[in-house]
Amino acid sequence: MLRHLLRPNEAKIVFLILDGLGGIRNSEFPQTALEAANTPNLDALAGEGLCGRSMPISNGITPGSGPAHFALFGYDPLAPENDVGRGVLEVTGSGYDLEAMDIAIRGNFATVNADRVLTDRRAGRIPHEECIRLCTKLGSTIQSIDGVQIIIMPVREYRFGVVLRGKGLSPEVEETDPQLTGKKPLDPVATSPEAERTAGIIAQFITRANEALADEKKANTVLMRGISRRPAIEPLQERTGLTPAAIASYPLYRGVARLCGMELIDTGFSVEEEIETLRSAYNKGYDFFFVHIKKADSYGEDGNIEGKIKVIEEVDRHIPSILELSPEVIIVTGDHSTPCALKLHSWHPVPFLVRSNVCGMDATVAFNETECDKGALGVFPARKIMELALANAGKLKKHGA
Amino acid sequence: MLRHLLRPNEAKIVFLILDGLGGIRNSEFPQTALEAANTPNLDALAGEGLCGRSMPISNGITPGSGPAHFALFGYDPLAPENDVGRGVLEVTGSGYDLEAMDIAIRGNFATVNADRVLTDRRAGRIPHEECIRLCTKLGSTIQSIDGVQIIIMPVREYRFGVVLRGKGLSPEVEETDPQLTGKKPLDPVATSPEAERTAGIIAQFITRANEALADEKKANTVLMRGISRRPAIEPLQERTGLTPAAIASYPLYRGVARLCGMELIDTGFSVEEEIETLRSAYNKGYDFFFVHIKKADSYGEDGNIEGKIKVIEEVDRHIPSILELSPEVIIVTGDHSTPCALKLHSWHPVPFLVRSNVCGMDATVAFNETECDKGALGVFPARKIMELALANAGKLKKHGA
Repeated sequence: MLRHLLRPNEAKIVFLILDGLGGIRNSEFPQTALEAANTPNLDALAGEGLCGRSMPISNGITPGSGPAHFALFGYDPLAPENDVGRGVLEVTGSGYDLEAMDIAIRGNFATVNADRVLTDRRAGRIPHEECIRLCTKLGSTIQSIDGVQIIIMPVREYRFGVVLRGKGLSPEVEETDPQLTGKKPLDPVATSPEAERTAGIIAQFITRANEALADEKKANTVLMRGISRRPAIEPLQERTGLTPAAIASYPLYRGVARLCGMELIDTGFSVEEEIETLRSAYNKGYDFFFVHIKKADSYGEDGNIEGKIKVIEEVDRHIPSILELSPEVIIVTGDHSTPCALKLHSWHPVPFLVRSNVCGMDATVAFNETECDKGALGVFPARKIMELALANAGKLKKHGA
Repeated sequence: MLRHLLRPNEAKIVFLILDGLGGIRNSEFPQTALEAANTPNLDALAGEGLCGRSMPISNGITPGSGPAHFALFGYDPLAPENDVGRGVLEVTGSGYDLEAMDIAIRGNFATVNADRVLTDRRAGRIPHEECIRLCTKLGSTIQSIDGVQIIIMPVREYRFGVVLRGKGLSPEVEETDPQLTGKKPLDPVATSPEAERTAGIIAQFITRANEALADEKKANTVLMRGISRRPAIEPLQERTGLTPAAIASYPLYRGVARLCGMELIDTGFSVEEEIETLRSAYNKGYDFFFVHIKKADSYGEDGNIEGKIKVIEEVDRHIPSILELSPEVIIVTGDHSTPCALKLHSWHPVPFLVRSNVCGMDATVAFNETECDKGALGVFPARKIMELALANAGKLKKHGA
């Protein structure tokens, strides 16, 4: 990012991300979900704007959700400092701001039998209310261990977050989740001498959690995963001059957004609720709105093309209420492809569209993979999207005389 | 290359390189050779797969064969360590594995008159059998000079290789080929003080070769070229987890392949023989097959579009026997363009196609420059092809959670 070119103004950018948007065609799936979906409003935007294909990382490199979003926000998805642990993402995504030396852990509530062998790594996917009750129970009995403060917070369903705050801690501790039922949970093992004390504290935490949960039917133990520390990430405000807000309902995406400096806006889980949240927050001083729609990815991973089509069509129906806000720039794309044909994240570049008063027009008349292949933007790195967004919003000066 | 993402499996990749494949259209050549050729099999692959244009180095940079192939194999074609001397390429390509401190030299048998003025820099392009006879003659009379071991090997026709093996050698010695007939061969001049001894050994070698060849009619002297030392190149096995084999008949391409760690498979010179070699080697434990077809380039350099069309059509006729092997991934492209319109290597990006079960499909229905310009891959760096190949073979994991 060329910080000396920044020229903040009032223009607003709506950055609409359909997770796992891209698809591929093959003999079994002669159309992608985006091709099959009826999307008159997105097609009109494509007709008025510019299209192309956004490459999350590089040809052949399949991104996880974290790196894919860092790329969307303009950060190098391969830089080690942007390789953020799941513990940090979940804790940050639950709205908790980590301090620099904190250790963040993602916890699973899980079920063990009388021999302490795992029978369910997710405690029967207990509801979120149960998660809140259990976290309160743990939090009231475990407040510190060996002088280190313990902060416990619900994340979602069977998932919770733990923060260790104190001196002399290290994240170099292995996970305790054996990844399979029928096995006993692992011990937290230090992978460096500096982490011995932290491993001991985590082991004590597990012992005390087991005691506190002994009378629970489902959630009678905990698995500790993604033990990590917050990386130093330059906030978007400084890199871009934007005042960014995130409207995302899933913890991981909220976590990435928060780590990049975005304000997290509370929102419901449905597309309708998220768009309503955008409308309410629109005039509250922000000029960049990351709106994250999760379900396109979930259906892609299930190979459920009807489901993916439905989500895309639902988003399309809400485009007019976004346009009513008259954002200067609207961008629609995904963080990566999740083709129903593959049921997995993939490396294939993602359909992309931008519409503004200054974007120009290309020959594309619809928003889908085949049309975007004809787009004037070509195949380009996702990392460049933020610069394109800023330019379309008039927020970048000329470089050089 | 992201080595931590490697996930080796049994899937096989056929990497079919038509040297100098790309062409350009102009008023004299309204079609490129690839457009004019009748290629039903390649067109079918393009229809089932993804196309694009592979950029050997960069817009406007015309590659030699060495850098163009390093790029194809995923190496930086501009990195100094990949700037390999011709001596190294020819010696390695003849199947000889250099040691780290060896000096490799490409020799030309040449003709001088009674005044020792060059009359033919290639000794009348003597046949390969003559080359073998002459190398045996030299080898039996020159085995060491000043304590340095001398190894002599035939390469092809008038070309041979010399290896100097010993202590205190340096490759910083100028070539002795004056590049023109009517001149005397140059002396081997050291360009650094450390190379004085090596220059002296090469001078002695020339004197002794002249003595040994005095009674030859055509090949009565030698020219020493491409004096060089093997660079440290990370083998493909380590970078990619592949077990790669090279089916190439020309020494330079065999040399690059060997330097990248490929096993060299003996093969004949015709397309038919090379494809037959592929078929015989297919189930011998390799999972990557570099198949190099030279003649498309040679005809391009001659401006002989009929010849180039014929080679392309010959390759097309052999596609079904490649597909009978059921490779999980087939890639067809060139190392660079050699347009008949230019009679030279050029910088123009090269038609590219990949077909696998997971590649997806784009709108291209034929394999040629104009169709590839519409391909979903766009114009992309040749260096990324290996990652794309690995991904299509299922040999790369996801990056990040």
